[in-house]
Amino acid sequence: MIKATVYVTIKQSVLDPQGVAVQGALHSMGFEEVQSVRIGKYMELQLDTSDRNEAEARVKDMCEKLLANTVVEDYRFELEG
Amino acid sequence: MIKATVYVTIKQSVLDPQGVAVQGALHSMGFEEVQSVRIGKYMELQLDTSDRNEAEARVKDMCEKLLANTVVEDYRFELEG
Repeated sequence: MIKATVYVTIKQSVLDPQGVAVQGALHSMGFEEVQSVRIGKYMELQLDTSDRNEAEARVKDMCEKLLANTVVEDYRFELEG
Repeated sequence: MIKATVYVTIKQSVLDPQGVAVQGALHSMGFEEVQSVRIGKYMELQLDTSDRNEAEARVKDMCEKLLANTVVEDYRFELEG
């Protein structure tokens, strides 16, 4: 069993309206030191395989095809176990 | 300037319907080795402060009050810089 942790973030050049909204909310709550907020996704996948190299290629494929929109998002992942 | 990275995940005992949907989609695309998917949030905050202890207390406060719903979600964060 291999655990894959995938991080999907919006590219630096792309506006993150959700982050802007959260920043505004934090400001209105008195957290004025918050200069910027960027929000992404964090995914934990349990893979029923023990071949690390195969898992790496497969998770990359999953990211490209479904988990990330590579036009506006970046992704990275870690494998464990 | 301190960078805080916040991870918000759904508690293990709570059903994650988004994760179940993504797992179903991955299966139907031929990624049958995916045993489970849990989806969380990943946030990067830039804080205009240099006091690490204060930043730690403030980010904890932000998580408790806005960033995480502690009834059904767990959070953890890292500070950098």
